[in-house]
Amino acid sequence: MTAYDPNNIFAKIIRGVLPCERVFEDEHTLAFMDIMPQGDGHVLVVAKSASRNLLDADPAVLGPLMVTVQRLAKGVKAAFGADGVTIMQFNESSAGQTVFHIHVHVIPRWNDVPLRGHTGEMADPELLRTQADKIRRTIGFVGFTG
Amino acid sequence: MTAYDPNNIFAKIIRGVLPCERVFEDEHTLAFMDIMPQGDGHVLVVAKSASRNLLDADPAVLGPLMVTVQRLAKGVKAAFGADGVTIMQFNESSAGQTVFHIHVHVIPRWNDVPLRGHTGEMADPELLRTQADKIRRTIGFVGFTG
Repeated sequence: MTAYDPNNIFAKIIRGVLPCERVFEDEHTLAFMDIMPQGDGHVLVVAKSASRNLLDADPAVLGPLMVTVQRLAKGVKAAFGADGVTIMQFNESSAGQTVFHIHVHVIPRWNDVPLRGHTGEMADPELLRTQADKIRRTIGFVGFTG
Repeated sequence: MTAYDPNNIFAKIIRGVLPCERVFEDEHTLAFMDIMPQGDGHVLVVAKSASRNLLDADPAVLGPLMVTVQRLAKGVKAAFGADGVTIMQFNESSAGQTVFHIHVHVIPRWNDVPLRGHTGEMADPELLRTQADKIRRTIGFVGFTG
């Protein structure tokens, strides 16, 4: 497996070098809006520790990672009145991974509404901010000073 | 959310009332071949504790669940010489959930091979057994007496 690249865009977001529309953060994890959403309210959860994906991750990070995924799954479902939530996690290009820092997709779902394809189209930043505000209010996230 | 039904088919598999092609088991989790695979080597990992999905799961089960998912992700990739692994976890019908006991899909992936749709077609039991043997050998699973 290719080595971890510390300059991938999610690593830069974690370091604060690149911006994101943050919806949750704790000691181990960070959650932010996907800028190329496959559905309204599509959030990404990343582990802060350096790993390419699930295949090389320290098993100790998986519990905290999934607790945040669960928090966001409940949060986006409540924030947007969704009927369900799809969780996806891709390992290597063949599986659809495009950024090589471990991350989990959390996507609210509605009955009879298919996921949008991964078009690579950027969402409107104002729309993402409005959606992020709704999620932050729903889960009570007011910031993290770690 | 609808209540947990203790007679769902995965609960019956966990209780040993229904059979499965088991590839791993420990105190908290059980992994077996998906009988309607979306790709060769498609495995399901279930938590043994009763929950409908991620939305009502005890956060304490998520770490052990994902450690087994990771073990199987590495295992199926090695067993089948795959290029990557897709992890999916569905919550409620709108998200594609069909059995209402928390479970995670672990699907080996190859470059340029799309996932098969969820056709509902049953795999050949002999093929599943051969694939399960390969996974068990790869991860060194010889049984669990809990």
